[in-house]
Amino acid sequence: MEFLVRSENRLPADTPAERREELRAGERTRAMELRAEGVLKRLWRVPGRNATVGLYEAEDPAALHDALMSLPMAPWLDVHVEALATHPQERTS
Amino acid sequence: MEFLVRSENRLPADTPAERREELRAGERTRAMELRAEGVLKRLWRVPGRNATVGLYEAEDPAALHDALMSLPMAPWLDVHVEALATHPQERTS
Amino acid sequence: MEFLVRSENRLPADTPAERREELRAGERTRAMELRAEGVLKRLWRVPGRNATVGLYEAEDPAALHDALMSLPMAPWLDVHVEALATHPQERTS
Amino acid sequence: MEFLVRSENRLPADTPAERREELRAGERTRAMELRAEGVLKRLWRVPGRNATVGLYEAEDPAALHDALMSLPMAPWLDVHVEALATHPQERTS
Amino acid sequence: MEFLVRSENRLPADTPAERREELRAGERTRAMELRAEGVLKRLWRVPGRNATVGLYEAEDPAALHDALMSLPMAPWLDVHVEALATHPQERTS
Amino acid sequence: MEFLVRSENRLPADTPAERREELRAGERTRAMELRAEGVLKRLWRVPGRNATVGLYEAEDPAALHDALMSLPMAPWLDVHVEALATHPQERTS
Amino acid sequence: MEFLVRSENRLPADTPAERREELRAGERTRAMELRAEGVLKRLWRVPGRNATVGLYEAEDPAALHDALMSLPMAPWLDVHVEALATHPQERTS
Amino acid sequence: MEFLVRSENRLPADTPAERREELRAGERTRAMELRAEGVLKRLWRVPGRNATVGLYEAEDPAALHDALMSLPMAPWLDVHVEALATHPQERTS
Amino acid sequence: MEFLVRSENRLPADTPAERREELRAGERTRAMELRAEGVLKRLWRVPGRNATVGLYEAEDPAALHDALMSLPMAPWLDVHVEALATHPQERTS
Amino acid sequence: MEFLVRSENRLPADTPAERREELRAGERTRAMELRAEGVLKRLWRVPGRNATVGLYEAEDPAALHDALMSLPMAPWLDVHVEALATHPQERTS
Repeated sequence: MEFLVRSENRLPADTPAERREELRAGERTRAMELRAEGVLKRLWRVPGRNATVGLYEAEDPAALHDALMSLPMAPWLDVHVEALATHPQERTS
Repeated sequence: MEFLVRSENRLPADTPAERREELRAGERTRAMELRAEGVLKRLWRVPGRNATVGLYEAEDPAALHDALMSLPMAPWLDVHVEALATHPQERTS
Repeated sequence: MEFLVRSENRLPADTPAERREELRAGERTRAMELRAEGVLKRLWRVPGRNATVGLYEAEDPAALHDALMSLPMAPWLDVHVEALATHPQERTS
Repeated sequence: MEFLVRSENRLPADTPAERREELRAGERTRAMELRAEGVLKRLWRVPGRNATVGLYEAEDPAALHDALMSLPMAPWLDVHVEALATHPQERTS
Repeated sequence: MEFLVRSENRLPADTPAERREELRAGERTRAMELRAEGVLKRLWRVPGRNATVGLYEAEDPAALHDALMSLPMAPWLDVHVEALATHPQERTS
Repeated sequence: MEFLVRSENRLPADTPAERREELRAGERTRAMELRAEGVLKRLWRVPGRNATVGLYEAEDPAALHDALMSLPMAPWLDVHVEALATHPQERTS
Repeated sequence: MEFLVRSENRLPADTPAERREELRAGERTRAMELRAEGVLKRLWRVPGRNATVGLYEAEDPAALHDALMSLPMAPWLDVHVEALATHPQERTS
Repeated sequence: MEFLVRSENRLPADTPAERREELRAGERTRAMELRAEGVLKRLWRVPGRNATVGLYEAEDPAALHDALMSLPMAPWLDVHVEALATHPQERTS
Repeated sequence: MEFLVRSENRLPADTPAERREELRAGERTRAMELRAEGVLKRLWRVPGRNATVGLYEAEDPAALHDALMSLPMAPWLDVHVEALATHPQERTS
Repeated sequence: MEFLVRSENRLPADTPAERREELRAGERTRAMELRAEGVLKRLWRVPGRNATVGLYEAEDPAALHDALMSLPMAPWLDVHVEALATHPQERTS
C-alpha cells in the first residue's frame, strides 16, 4: 500500500556544519537503499523549506514506521503520514 | 491492519423523522454485518455529538474505503481515517 | 513541473443519482484524457471521503488551473494545489 | 469508562542514548503493569512519529490522570484525552 | 464526574419566531429538569453568541450524552464535551 | 463576574525537582488564599496534562489579571481567559 | 469594563435589497443609541469584509450580551468578544 | 499604501450560467477601471480555485474597502486584506 | 490611519529580574513617548497573559512598523497588526 | 512563473548584535543580486514582525528553492511558498 509522507526537518540551525553534513550523507545513503527496496518511490522538496513530501510503499503502517525510523535524521524529523487508497481509475487501467 | 475512523454525521437537522429512522436502521444493519465480518471492531459515541469513533480492521485503505462507503449514511458522513501501526508492546505480548 | 493536488468533492448529498452519475462519468472521461496527455500522473482516494489526492504535471500553474477547471465536477471541487520541487536525489539518479 | 489517549513524546532529540533507553525501559515496564491492571487496553504507534494512540479504561478522569502521570516519560509527553461513550450497538450486543 | 460542555446553537436565523419560541420554552423546561436531577450544575452564556458553556455532572459519558440529546434543541446544537478531573486541591478540602 | 480560565503549565521538564516542589507548594498556598477570598471558585485538572481549568470570580478583568499574576507559577503559565455571562436561567432561579 | 467585539455579518448574499436596507437602517439607529448610552465607543470596518471591530463598554458580560442582541442584525452576526483589562499605563495617567 | 488581497469567490455552484456570466463580465469591467485608476496593480489566480490574490494600492483601508465593495461580485467574495509596508530595500533603491 | 496591534511578550521566563525590569522601564518610557506623539492611542492587557492589545495611529504601515520596532522589548514581541477602516457611522458623526 | 513567498525570520532574539548585522548585510547583498537577476521582483515588510512577503519569479519551484536557500539567513527563515497563476485579465492586457 502507498503512503504520502510529509517530513519537516527540525535539525537546529546552529548544528555544526560537519555534523549536519554527516547526517545528510547518511540520510542520502539510507534513502537510496529504501529506493532500491521499492519503499521510497518518489521524493519532492517543499520549495523554500527544509522539508520533503515522499511517496512510499510498504506492507503496512508498522513497516513504514520502521523504514522511516531507519533514517539517520529521524530524531529531528516531524513526520505526518497519510495512507492512500488506489483510485479505481488506476485499478482498472 | 487497523484504522481509527472518526465520523461526523451531517444529515440535515430538518430531515423528516421517517427518512432519518430508515437511514439509522439501515446503518445499524450494515454496521452489524461489518462487525460479523471483523471489519468493525469497536464503536464509540463522541458524547454530545452525532459522531462516532470506530476501530476498523481491513486489508488496506481501499478495502476500508469500500466498507465505509457501503454504509447507507455514507453520503452525509464527514469521515477522517488514521492508519495505525501495531505497537511493539502488543506484537511481542 | 509537478503539483500535488488535494480535491474535496462538495457535490450536495441530495444531488439526484442520475445527475451524479452523469457528472462522474464525465469526470472519468476527462481524467482519462488528462492521463493520456501526461497531465494526470497518479490519483489516489482519501479513504472514507469523497476526496482525492493527485499528482499532476503541467508547464506552469496557469496550465494546471486550466486542466483542473476542465473537469465537469470542477464547480463542486474544493481544490488545494502544492507546487513541488524535484528532489536532488531524483535529479541525479 | 473508556478514553482515547493521544500522546506525543517531546523528549529532546539530543537526550543521551543511555537516559533515553532507561526511560523507554521504565515506560515499557509501567505500561505492562497498566495492561495487567486492565487500564491500558490497546496501544498503537502513529506511523512516522514518536507518538502513540492508546485505549484506556479507568473509573474516572482523575484515575486516568494518575495512571498517565505514573509513566516515567510523563514529563515529556504531550497528551490529549478524549472520553468516549459506549455505542448502543455495543451495549445491546 | 464533571464535564465542561460548550454548545453553539445553529438553529437557522430564518426559523419562524413561533417555532423558535416553542423550542426555547422546551429547552428551558428540560434544562430545569436536568438541574433538579443534579445533571446541569451551572450554565453561562458566551457573550455575543447564541452559545453556552455548562458544567454538567453525570455517571459517565454515555449518561451525559443521553442527557444532552434529551434537549429539544439538540438537533441544532454543535456540542463539545471536555471530561474534567477533580483537582487534588478540592479533593482534600 | 465569572471567568473560565484555562492554564497550561510550561515549566520545563528538566526543572530540578526541588525548584518544582517549591513552586508547587507556593502555588497551592496562593491558590488556597484565592479560594478563601472567593476569587478561585472551582479548579479541575485536564486529564493527562499539566493543565487546569478554573472558575474564577473577580470584579473585572484587571482584578482577575492581578490574581492570576500573583501565582508563583505565573511566569510559566500559558493562560486563556473567557469572560462568561450569567445565564438567565440562573438569574431568575 | 471594556470589550473588543469582532462581528462577521452572515446575512445571506441573496437577501432582497429592501430587507437588507431595512436591517441596515435599523442597525444604524440602534448603534447610534448604543453610542449615546456610552456602550459603543468606537467602531471600525474590517476592510474588504462585511465585518466590524468595535470597542464597547458595559458593566459586565451579561449587559454587553443584551446590548449586542438588541441589534436588529443580531441573528445573522457571528460575534466574538474579548474582555480587556485597562493597562496600568492608562490607570496611572 | 499597498495591500495584499486574497479573495475566495463563494458564488453558489448552482448559479444559472447567464447570471454567472453577467457577474463575471461586470467584474472584469470594474477590475479594468480599478487598474486604470492605479488601485489594482497585479492580479493572480490561485490555481485550482475560484480565488485570486491581488496587489492593490489605496490611500487607506477605507478607500480600499470602497474599491473592493464596488466589484459586482462583492456580495459573494470572502476577502482577507493584509496591509504591507514597503521594504527599506525598495525605499532606498 | 488606525491599527489594532496584538502583542505577545515572549521574553523567556528565566530572564534575570534586573534585565526584565530594565526592559519594562524602557518599554514604559518609549510607550509614553508614542502616546505623546499620538501614535499609541489606547493600550489594554489581555487578562492572564503577558500580552497587550493596542490601538495605534500612524501614517502608513511602514511608520507603524518603525514605531513598534522602537520599543526596547521589540525583539521578544510576537506582534500581529490589523489595519482598520473608519466606519461610516464615525465618519459622518 | 511567479511565487508569493512569506518568510518569518526566527533568528533568536539573543543573537549577538555583530552576528545579526553580518547576517543582515549578507542578506541585503544577496537580495540585491536576486533583484538584479529578476528573481526577486517585490519585497514588503509585514508590519510589526521580523517577516517579509516577497514576489519572486523563477523557472520552476526547484529554481526558486535554490534562490531562497542562497540567502545567508536561510537557516533561520520559516518560509511558505505559493505558486500563482497569471490572471487572464493580465494575459490579455
